[in-house]
Amino acid sequence: MWPTDEVIRALTERGDLWQSAPGVTGLRGSVGSLCEELERAIGALLVGEGIEEWRVPPAIPLEALERADYFTSFPQWLTVAAHLDADVEKMEMVATAASPARACSRALAPAEVALMPAVCYHVYAALADRVLPAARRVAVRGTCWRHEGERLAPLERGWAFTMLEVVCLGSPADVEEFLSCGVQRATDFAGALGLPATVADASDPFFAPTGRGKALLQRMKRLKRELLLPLDAERGIAAASFNDHQSFFGESFGIRDADGEPISTGCIAFGIERWVLAWLAAYGPEPDGWPVMNNVVPTNGGY
Amino acid sequence: MWPTDEVIRALTERGDLWQSAPGVTGLRGSVGSLCEELERAIGALLVGEGIEEWRVPPAIPLEALERADYFTSFPQWLTVAAHLDADVEKMEMVATAASPARACSRALAPAEVALMPAVCYHVYAALADRVLPAARRVAVRGTCWRHEGERLAPLERGWAFTMLEVVCLGSPADVEEFLSCGVQRATDFAGALGLPATVADASDPFFAPTGRGKALLQRMKRLKRELLLPLDAERGIAAASFNDHQSFFGESFGIRDADGEPISTGCIAFGIERWVLAWLAAYGPEPDGWPVMNNVVPTNGGY
Repeated sequence: MWPTDEVIRALTERGDLWQSAPGVTGLRGSVGSLCEELERAIGALLVGEGIEEWRVPPAIPLEALERADYFTSFPQWLTVAAHLDADVEKMEMVATAASPARACSRALAPAEVALMPAVCYHVYAALADRVLPAARRVAVRGTCWRHEGERLAPLERGWAFTMLEVVCLGSPADVEEFLSCGVQRATDFAGALGLPATVADASDPFFAPTGRGKALLQRMKRLKRELLLPLDAERGIAAASFNDHQSFFGESFGIRDADGEPISTGCIAFGIERWVLAWLAAYGPEPDGWPVMNNVVPTNGGY
Repeated sequence: MWPTDEVIRALTERGDLWQSAPGVTGLRGSVGSLCEELERAIGALLVGEGIEEWRVPPAIPLEALERADYFTSFPQWLTVAAHLDADVEKMEMVATAASPARACSRALAPAEVALMPAVCYHVYAALADRVLPAARRVAVRGTCWRHEGERLAPLERGWAFTMLEVVCLGSPADVEEFLSCGVQRATDFAGALGLPATVADASDPFFAPTGRGKALLQRMKRLKRELLLPLDAERGIAAASFNDHQSFFGESFGIRDADGEPISTGCIAFGIERWVLAWLAAYGPEPDGWPVMNNVVPTNGGY
């Protein structure tokens, strides 16, 4: 295994990795191509017969997150997109300030949208207050934002990162089958890349003051599993997660089945940059040490 | 031609187009696939022998925009990514507010990054204060954000939209050749899609109080050209632009040639959603009216 701090240092030194801000990372050269290739492969892994593909907006209304009870669960991550106030005098104040970069924070209009912390919120928001006569599976992808302060680290834990997801909406049995199939497919995919994955029960890092108890409940009910890829002998990274929301989003967003009952949902989420890091930890930062990525996605496909 | 307001209404009614906020648009179904297909084709059009492909970060430091004199030119468009203040009491205030969505604007940390108004800023920022011994061409893509207030319209003028760009850094002659080749390739590509394009001189909408005179200079020197696709008998849409920056970014970012002179730059930028709209205006909102998109990208490629 290659130590990840040495990998990041090597990529940074040769200019193939850089940051706009802590956790907001660019890639070019061989590692940029690797990231594109892994994203394509995972994209192919997550679609198939009967799976809709949506091109979701790059931001979500704060009201949709409010409806999902997001603010009591994960306020620590929240990142908004905010534009300058349309008032010409305020804009002129920014334009003529000694440091416009610093001045602009004092001239923002109230935020109305968040840069989404997970892509699947778009699916619940778009299907809100509908009846779904049959189960649906929807593939979505996008840049997600979670501000994790001191814990941010390039590729490992991004403020911004690329998430590919499939959401299942249906009966509890539909969701259960979807998730177990997903665990299998993700494990097989990691194996085809030569990365020995393990699957573990997990919980989300709920905000302590207002999310207390939620993590415990999640663990007790075994609602979250993660696919861990090795970074070194002791340390793994969660590169995919399998989440059973039960009827939480069905209730929150008023999405009902043909009998009028809140629908059950589950999602499978892949964090692309973490797959890149696990690959680099296994094969090193130099592309001449990388195996060829052939036939890593089963063509018989579909969930 | 199909009137664009009718096209948007039809897509919205069948659920294939929706907005998270004015100008922040999602697509699914046939129009989602169309958008993906056009993005793939334009992506293939813009790369080739000798063109580097970078995977840029989804945000840019405000300081980089400051260095590019952005704030006097286009403050009206500026959109920042801002996270909540890390102070636990402020987070708790948001989490327990009657309307967390409204409360969060009062608990933001000062913004340090912008959601980029154009992708090419990343290239100048990453090459800042370097000497380039030879000309370079770099392909980049990403979600760009420009808040255009009342003018925002789905697909036509997004707050957020998808931009694919190639940047050339070299001598004035390198840039000139790059841009004329780009104009030709873009015109041919539109022709292959069956969309009759015209190329026109243009200028950017500089902020009047502080950007005064810049648009006039741009027009006089013929530094900006746009590829216009028809929306109806009278109205066209700028679906690509060809920009000669002369030595502006070379000087601003201290990028120099082998002789120590500020490098010249130019960029070619495609706005994907506008190609989608022009296609729909030509062929209608129903996919059974769409021609097959075959051989629209020349395989002999390269600039």
